[in-house]
Amino acid sequence: MPLPKRRRSATRARLLEGALEVFAERGFHGASVEDICDRAGFTRGAFYSNFGSKDELVLALFEATTDRLLEQIAALLPDLANQPGTLLDAVLGLLDDAAPDQRQWHLISTEFTLHALRNPAAAEALVRQRTVFRQRLTELVEEISRTSGLRLSVPAEQFVRLVTALHEGARAQTLLEPEEVPAGSLEHTFLPMVLDAISRR
Amino acid sequence: MPLPKRRRSATRARLLEGALEVFAERGFHGASVEDICDRAGFTRGAFYSNFGSKDELVLALFEATTDRLLEQIAALLPDLANQPGTLLDAVLGLLDDAAPDQRQWHLISTEFTLHALRNPAAAEALVRQRTVFRQRLTELVEEISRTSGLRLSVPAEQFVRLVTALHEGARAQTLLEPEEVPAGSLEHTFLPMVLDAISRR
Repeated sequence: MPLPKRRRSATRARLLEGALEVFAERGFHGASVEDICDRAGFTRGAFYSNFGSKDELVLALFEATTDRLLEQIAALLPDLANQPGTLLDAVLGLLDDAAPDQRQWHLISTEFTLHALRNPAAAEALVRQRTVFRQRLTELVEEISRTSGLRLSVPAEQFVRLVTALHEGARAQTLLEPEEVPAGSLEHTFLPMVLDAISRR
Repeated sequence: MPLPKRRRSATRARLLEGALEVFAERGFHGASVEDICDRAGFTRGAFYSNFGSKDELVLALFEATTDRLLEQIAALLPDLANQPGTLLDAVLGLLDDAAPDQRQWHLISTEFTLHALRNPAAAEALVRQRTVFRQRLTELVEEISRTSGLRLSVPAEQFVRLVTALHEGARAQTLLEPEEVPAGSLEHTFLPMVLDAISRR
């Protein structure tokens, strides 16, 4: 008999939360499905009725985080779509708040990317998911560009790629040297310069 | 009796080369000192007469690569120190050529960074090495700035941090989607805009 929907989604949420902790401690490869179940207080049966595999769980973690981020960005639009510079600052702030714990988040997202670089099926699934996220961000940038009458001299998608690449690279520096590179400092310093350089009113 | 110096440095070089391959295949944690010795055709004794540990070998790999890169950049200065834009393009080209294989290089450098985020001693050694590299790059930027009469509106070190963060973040995208993000494309598109924005003649 299938579980009621609400109970099932609470199980999923607790598994996702437990998994993030276990991955941060033992790494993606070091954490077994059993470890994750123990942490969340569920059986392997509960795990497999929610996720087909450990890979699938990680991708669900990514999706939950990027969905939350996209919702938060969309909520800023009514007020800020006319002020691209202010909006960019606000979005950069969200990037650092989207994940509950930047260190845990960096560890699992980087480890899964490395796993994907050695495993074509995981790479395909990861690229598919990153593409959906990037396209939705690109659509937001295009919408803002229309609303504010800004014409960009590069495709919106390139700018989105720049933001994600810099954010991921900068996060590694922040985690290694938190005092030297406060979270978001490189992005806040340099991305407005780029936005200005590619903007033609 | 200590080995003659030349033979010892050839042993080191072969161990470093073998290690890079084994790490790319099995990961930093999956590759044992024994695996590395087998690949390079040496005994564990030869390994430990060259490196104190697997961590020390990885740091030696990083050092060899960054030293080569710094030498190549320094060699460009006599011709290009007066043309910061052209020099930046040339340096970005070198970044992609410095490591013999970008995929192998990305795997080991990212894995060791993750290892360092869980291991304070490794973090300390990695930060020390990254600091030396960054300082030497910063000195080069400052020298170019003096030679070309360019005043930068941000500290040279911040610009160096931007370049390395973007390069590392962009490389992950290139490895996952080589056709969508050719190596160096984000750096070549956006870093000249930043250089222009921070330059005051």
